[in-house]
Amino acid sequence: MFLSSIVNNAKRLAPIVRAMSSQSGPLVDLTVDNYGVAVLTMQRPPVNSLNLDMIKELSKSLDEVEKSKSKGLILTSSSPTVFSAGLDIMEMYKPDLKRAEEFWTTLQDVYFKLFDSNFVTTAAINGHAPGGGCLLSMSCEYRVMVSGKFTIGLNETALGIVAPTWFMDTMCHTIPIREAEYALTTARMFTSDEALKVRLIDETATNKADAISKCKDFIEKFENIPPLARSITKQKIRQGPIQRLRQNRKADLDEFLSNLKHPKVQQSLETYIQILKMKSSKN
Amino acid sequence: MFLSSIVNNAKRLAPIVRAMSSQSGPLVDLTVDNYGVAVLTMQRPPVNSLNLDMIKELSKSLDEVEKSKSKGLILTSSSPTVFSAGLDIMEMYKPDLKRAEEFWTTLQDVYFKLFDSNFVTTAAINGHAPGGGCLLSMSCEYRVMVSGKFTIGLNETALGIVAPTWFMDTMCHTIPIREAEYALTTARMFTSDEALKVRLIDETATNKADAISKCKDFIEKFENIPPLARSITKQKIRQGPIQRLRQNRKADLDEFLSNLKHPKVQQSLETYIQILKMKSSKN
Amino acid sequence: MFLSSIVNNAKRLAPIVRAMSSQSGPLVDLTVDNYGVAVLTMQRPPVNSLNLDMIKELSKSLDEVEKSKSKGLILTSSSPTVFSAGLDIMEMYKPDLKRAEEFWTTLQDVYFKLFDSNFVTTAAINGHAPGGGCLLSMSCEYRVMVSGKFTIGLNETALGIVAPTWFMDTMCHTIPIREAEYALTTARMFTSDEALKVRLIDETATNKADAISKCKDFIEKFENIPPLARSITKQKIRQGPIQRLRQNRKADLDEFLSNLKHPKVQQSLETYIQILKMKSSKN
Repeated sequence: MFLSSIVNNAKRLAPIVRAMSSQSGPLVDLTVDNYGVAVLTMQRPPVNSLNLDMIKELSKSLDEVEKSKSKGLILTSSSPTVFSAGLDIMEMYKPDLKRAEEFWTTLQDVYFKLFDSNFVTTAAINGHAPGGGCLLSMSCEYRVMVSGKFTIGLNETALGIVAPTWFMDTMCHTIPIREAEYALTTARMFTSDEALKVRLIDETATNKADAISKCKDFIEKFENIPPLARSITKQKIRQGPIQRLRQNRKADLDEFLSNLKHPKVQQSLETYIQILKMKSSKN
Repeated sequence: MFLSSIVNNAKRLAPIVRAMSSQSGPLVDLTVDNYGVAVLTMQRPPVNSLNLDMIKELSKSLDEVEKSKSKGLILTSSSPTVFSAGLDIMEMYKPDLKRAEEFWTTLQDVYFKLFDSNFVTTAAINGHAPGGGCLLSMSCEYRVMVSGKFTIGLNETALGIVAPTWFMDTMCHTIPIREAEYALTTARMFTSDEALKVRLIDETATNKADAISKCKDFIEKFENIPPLARSITKQKIRQGPIQRLRQNRKADLDEFLSNLKHPKVQQSLETYIQILKMKSSKN
Repeated sequence: MFLSSIVNNAKRLAPIVRAMSSQSGPLVDLTVDNYGVAVLTMQRPPVNSLNLDMIKELSKSLDEVEKSKSKGLILTSSSPTVFSAGLDIMEMYKPDLKRAEEFWTTLQDVYFKLFDSNFVTTAAINGHAPGGGCLLSMSCEYRVMVSGKFTIGLNETALGIVAPTWFMDTMCHTIPIREAEYALTTARMFTSDEALKVRLIDETATNKADAISKCKDFIEKFENIPPLARSITKQKIRQGPIQRLRQNRKADLDEFLSNLKHPKVQQSLETYIQILKMKSSKN
């Protein structure tokens, strides 16, 4: 089983993963600066939760970055407090299975387009990054996080969810397996200092502008590195996680769908959503 | 070949691995405290060396913990100086092959029941933990070791033994592979401070009570984590070592048995046992 | 494609990888000291670049060390500034394909003879160690590097080259995968202090004699460890990288040869060699 009782954790997590969206305008913003660096800003208020529309936009934007021959990508958020709250729970509650299939397949695509990209990828993490938000940043090659009260981690178990194998694989590609086991089982949300210590992030920054500037510094490191040698090298060292998911895309999708169909999962989601609604109406 | 000349090392290791047992009473003690935590105490004097009876008791106790729906397990020792001296050398000297087969198969079972368990596993390491003693603790999810003169490590090469692949796999799951190679080849016994530095252990403690208390703190971390999501997550991230042994149980057993049959191995064991006996009679 | 534009990097790298050889005398020197330790000194002026003759000599010498039952090996350089500049670019420029095949196959052999050896292997890194120089040292079990201005790393991407999979595998066996990805993509050359921090080396030394002395100290650690148990243990923990290359030797060779045939690669090499010649004539 994939999801189980999440009620106990809803209160604790509600401020971060509040998934009720007050959507308006484009969900992402893609600009390329004078220096040739693409800045991809997630802007789905209030918390950039990743629903089907959002990940379709991300997928399209990543194609554009690839075509634009940008020097590199900086992934960031328009929210002052949240990088991305992760997967939108509404995509999993009473799902239309056709849509759920598209949702998961597109999420896999976004992962490949980031983790296995030809271009240089960085994340300017300017807010909380639980679950899928953490995954997006770990799929990049360099992570700069704004210091302060924000946290990052794969906290799936706290919601009674098991992170997909490729989420775990990606974390083990980033931090030592011993740290990953501890973090994954305890649903650990790292502060920026804790994340830096285990190298879940590479640098801290004082604010978003500083984070973006440090991401650019990383991208500039490759100014004299022939891009083809660079991208093949990156793809070779990331080959393990990539091949495991490529060979198991269908099984991974089936696992996700079969979990969604589980009555206990749907019941947990319903309870969780009720709590979020109550929280939301009080604010 | 599996075992080779061990004479040179006997003197150095004798204080730790003295395998002569003065057995009386049950070999393990299993209690569940008010909080619902199972404490499994190894109590086979003088050094908790793991003979067939001992590991059968451990195996049975782990089944009971599983059935009891305990919040978690603390594995510890009744000895004031030794957590466990590891495998009992007497099970390997002039072995009855039927018994040797049961011995090894049961040891594999104990490993799966610990490393792949549904419940939370911790080790309060209140004494030396060489060889199989180190393996038992590494199979847990959290290790607290009493500071002081005690040491921990896979010291098989010092006895002319090659640690089984799954012993190595488990160490590589715990500490960086570079550290594991150095430790395994040099038969390194880590002090508690050294072990903490490479994360072979997670915390030090002032005494056994403190170690048990810190193990409980770790178990309490999961109070709000749905248990099923937690255990599946743990089993997924431990899947590599588990699958490798599951697929090679028979080959692993055959390797152990064929090593035992080697005349040079038996000769080494005999010499080693003579030295232990001399040491023992002097004390 | 394997090699691409390297022009931009030639200036930066020329002082280190200058491949023009002024050869005279034997390319390597092998002595066994009173203590029984073999010292293998690379002495192909000016920078110990690894051409076919040089790696054939290394291969032969490693066979002699194996036969001599030496306690261990110290690999070092006669140059005061360069450990080894890595693969000789002249073996790749307008290659005779028969010779190129022998070159690559011998390099694979040298790797197996070092990385998978029965005897203890150490490197006294008394100068720069880019590319193949870094690989040779990483194939040993212990690395001591002279402090100061020397650097070490797999800098292939800076020359537009993709390091072979086994170069990467060997680096990931030595330092954390996150560090390896960063180092490999950015062509990072580590100072001795930086290398020590990530454990790319194990110790620093004040000069060559000190480095050799520290390598001997490491070899002496095994005085009381039965050699057979030691070597099997080492080979078991190195099994992953070894098996991957053994199973892919032919494909790895084909990849190398097909890269050499690429016109763009040959063009890059030609440009690079011109720059080296100009540099050389100025000095």
